[in-house]
Amino acid sequence: MTMKFFYSTGSCALASHIALEEAGADYEAMRISLKDGDQRKPEYLKLNPKGRVPVLVTDRGVLTENVAILAFVAQSHPAARLAPLDDPFAFAKMQAINSYLSSTVHVSHAHKGRGSRWVDDPDAIELLKKKVPQNMGDHFELIEREMLAGPWVMGDDYSVADAYLYTLATWLEGDSVDVKRFPRVHDHMNRMQQRPAVQRVLAAESA
Amino acid sequence: MTMKFFYSTGSCALASHIALEEAGADYEAMRISLKDGDQRKPEYLKLNPKGRVPVLVTDRGVLTENVAILAFVAQSHPAARLAPLDDPFAFAKMQAINSYLSSTVHVSHAHKGRGSRWVDDPDAIELLKKKVPQNMGDHFELIEREMLAGPWVMGDDYSVADAYLYTLATWLEGDSVDVKRFPRVHDHMNRMQQRPAVQRVLAAESA
Repeated sequence: MTMKFFYSTGSCALASHIALEEAGADYEAMRISLKDGDQRKPEYLKLNPKGRVPVLVTDRGVLTENVAILAFVAQSHPAARLAPLDDPFAFAKMQAINSYLSSTVHVSHAHKGRGSRWVDDPDAIELLKKKVPQNMGDHFELIEREMLAGPWVMGDDYSVADAYLYTLATWLEGDSVDVKRFPRVHDHMNRMQQRPAVQRVLAAESA
Repeated sequence: MTMKFFYSTGSCALASHIALEEAGADYEAMRISLKDGDQRKPEYLKLNPKGRVPVLVTDRGVLTENVAILAFVAQSHPAARLAPLDDPFAFAKMQAINSYLSSTVHVSHAHKGRGSRWVDDPDAIELLKKKVPQNMGDHFELIEREMLAGPWVMGDDYSVADAYLYTLATWLEGDSVDVKRFPRVHDHMNRMQQRPAVQRVLAAESA
């Protein structure tokens, strides 16, 4: 069965989208608009009651969360070599980076546009935006120093963590952080943009 | 080599601690105090520059992040059967729940005690605390309805996701949410507390 992959342009779903394309997976990309509230429509909530992207519909059922989908794409397409599948320690190192991107970096970014998740007061929502550049800068300083073995996240071997790091790095400019502060991250972004699979996905998402 | 596991009592590290104990892993538990700022001491930051728990020191190097450590413990102790290791789809379902617990549920909880991560203004930090009961209640409503097949998270088979769900469920009372609103979660908590490994870990963490 052709899998269905739901994403929204500009969202974190780009990471899983790239992974699917790199894997040569049999999937169809389905665009929804978070801005228009598609994620709160009843038919979408039936797929993902969390009302978020990404969503991957497989013949076994629905998967959500980048951290899970990225590992699933790698494990179910072993020939694409998108993760250290036979080495639990290396796999855990990769998952730790993906988990940090999800639970810390993405969360810090979300305080710019989605502060209402955590506070109702309009002034407080505005105040949350102020700390986003500092937090994103701090996180990417740590990534630059500790999580990018180079040339890829895991060293010589490209993995799904590269797709995820690239996705969040593309948010830096909008978060008022100059990616050039982080030469390794900047180099990584450029390297990613030269990959044919990444180019195909970026073209498809902006078409 | 005996692994070293760093935790702080009352923290999310309880999840990985339980998993290590359930696995019969060769580990030594090392307590630090987040309240006393041990996580910011230079020798700890050398282990984990993020200044957080959990940390698992193995003979291959250091692992962080519950989502990664839980999967690592399961994969490196296959005889303990703590995850659906041979089924990428089921493994991804489990990882999606762990990722939700990490990036959404834990994050909502953190807005009670760690609001200064996301905002500097003292009044805004106070305002962040107000929404915690509602958010944690909403998250556990979703967990009750969608993420607890029963009797365990993945159905008949106990997994590391049970340790993680249990850990965050123990925070509900402190977040002013009555766990009895969620009969399946409440039943799960009681079932967890009857497991010898859980009892050993709770005793060790509070000793």
